[in-house]
Amino acid sequence: MTGNVDWVAVDWGTSNLRGWGIAEDGSVVFEKTSPKGMGKLTREEFPAALAELLEGVAPGRSGKLEVLICGMAGARQGWLEAPYLEAPTDLRGLLDGAVHPDMGDSPIRASILPGVCQKAGGDNVMRGEETQLLGLASLNPGFSGMVCMPGTHSKWAQLSGSRIERFSTAMTGEMFELLRTHSVLRHSLAGDLDGPGRSDGFKAGAEAGLAHPEQLLGTLFQVRAGALLSGRQPDWCAGYLSGLLIGTEVGSNRHLVGDATVPLIGAPALCALYAQVLEMAGASGAPKDATEIVLAGLKAARSFAA
Amino acid sequence: MTGNVDWVAVDWGTSNLRGWGIAEDGSVVFEKTSPKGMGKLTREEFPAALAELLEGVAPGRSGKLEVLICGMAGARQGWLEAPYLEAPTDLRGLLDGAVHPDMGDSPIRASILPGVCQKAGGDNVMRGEETQLLGLASLNPGFSGMVCMPGTHSKWAQLSGSRIERFSTAMTGEMFELLRTHSVLRHSLAGDLDGPGRSDGFKAGAEAGLAHPEQLLGTLFQVRAGALLSGRQPDWCAGYLSGLLIGTEVGSNRHLVGDATVPLIGAPALCALYAQVLEMAGASGAPKDATEIVLAGLKAARSFAA
Repeated sequence: MTGNVDWVAVDWGTSNLRGWGIAEDGSVVFEKTSPKGMGKLTREEFPAALAELLEGVAPGRSGKLEVLICGMAGARQGWLEAPYLEAPTDLRGLLDGAVHPDMGDSPIRASILPGVCQKAGGDNVMRGEETQLLGLASLNPGFSGMVCMPGTHSKWAQLSGSRIERFSTAMTGEMFELLRTHSVLRHSLAGDLDGPGRSDGFKAGAEAGLAHPEQLLGTLFQVRAGALLSGRQPDWCAGYLSGLLIGTEVGSNRHLVGDATVPLIGAPALCALYAQVLEMAGASGAPKDATEIVLAGLKAARSFAA
Repeated sequence: MTGNVDWVAVDWGTSNLRGWGIAEDGSVVFEKTSPKGMGKLTREEFPAALAELLEGVAPGRSGKLEVLICGMAGARQGWLEAPYLEAPTDLRGLLDGAVHPDMGDSPIRASILPGVCQKAGGDNVMRGEETQLLGLASLNPGFSGMVCMPGTHSKWAQLSGSRIERFSTAMTGEMFELLRTHSVLRHSLAGDLDGPGRSDGFKAGAEAGLAHPEQLLGTLFQVRAGALLSGRQPDWCAGYLSGLLIGTEVGSNRHLVGDATVPLIGAPALCALYAQVLEMAGASGAPKDATEIVLAGLKAARSFAA
């Protein structure tokens, strides 16, 4: 079925595993997905999960099946730790930092790309996003500026061509879930969170966060007080909380963004919210297709072997 | 045993219930505590919990036992809702806003003091702290300035004599518990959190929070990255997280504090940490005895009936 596969590109995240068969001309021959993300596997279960994903894929003429993997499979608690490259660094060096797990008699030859860490200017780590950044750079030669990757742990990176100069991580998505699920604010967020008040709440929260990112610990409580005093409904409160957190995140990066257009890599609905807040801040956002970006990154990483 | 009790002062919080018998000369005849805080009781269970606390306390010459209550017993989900006074307001008016639950044939005559809300300048609410603020004012006539009440939900209030001008609430204590228990940071906070690294971590975190309160969402993740990259131990990480949150809170109130001495009302160990951070910010903190303060507040509230 897949005799023309030259190699396989894999994005192995915490929640999911995705693979694409790539032909010699760079076209995608197949796409396969599995729920066997890093977070659900013990170290010993990785080889079988990969073999299962690639069942029926024929090795190439060499008798081997080359697989290039980015993401959490290379974490300490993953399959095989791929030590971080340290920023600032040229992401074209990713493949040189790859590690190669022992696959025994299998025809699969797997390489796991490293993440990137930062020590000077604030300890930080990424795994997976570095490959997306290289993909963005390869699709947009000459781009320099801030890139935002919204999510559970949003990344903001300063890119100069294929060099990552510095980056930060904002716990915005995780904070929303923590507050919605476990905090006193949950009392104000019980019910239909997607009602018509959500967008008004989002706008009000984003304005508050952009105006005073230093007041987050205080403004958060106003979600609860607003529900008690002003009868704010759960949909409005959910929008406000979401807007406040994203507004605070964008506000704290404002000095690095100015009026630039910021590429956004992430889930489309979330990227649309970030684009809205960036516009409120006098900048703009350019949502990218995350699948296209990660594929471009894996292809680019493979093309730059030392 | 308590024939000389003139009235009973009660602080009914979410977690605990405390009562003091007060003689005609204002001295404390007895102190009683119970774990029956508001959070553990249904509406119907409040009268029995109070009767149990005061078992054996004889009514006065009138045949009645007057009980003045502050705190969460007056919340919507408490015994009987005591509507908020709205700031700015003179706290000598607290008793005029009290509500009186029906006690049936009991000799107990209970009054529950209102909380204070704020609508202009950011929705906010307090219950219990307003009585402490009145106590502080009555013990320190002529004091004007910011008061800090550290805790799960820290309050910062601007006091002018017995007037509360404005206030805010920071979810600092709750945020520490959320992050320690439920977030990705919990991996870096498993183990002995009270080891020798805690104070160094606290100082580093407080410096970061004071310097950049607008960067909280980003700096939080450095707790995790520091554990991964620099081998930071759980005691250091716990100190850093605590210092970062308190530093952010103090940093966001810095413009209101200047170089003033800020009265601190709360648990002594926590007040000591806030005093340390206030000193780092060029101000200072003056921890107060919280029991003495709330008692003074209940006495003062009782003395200012219209």
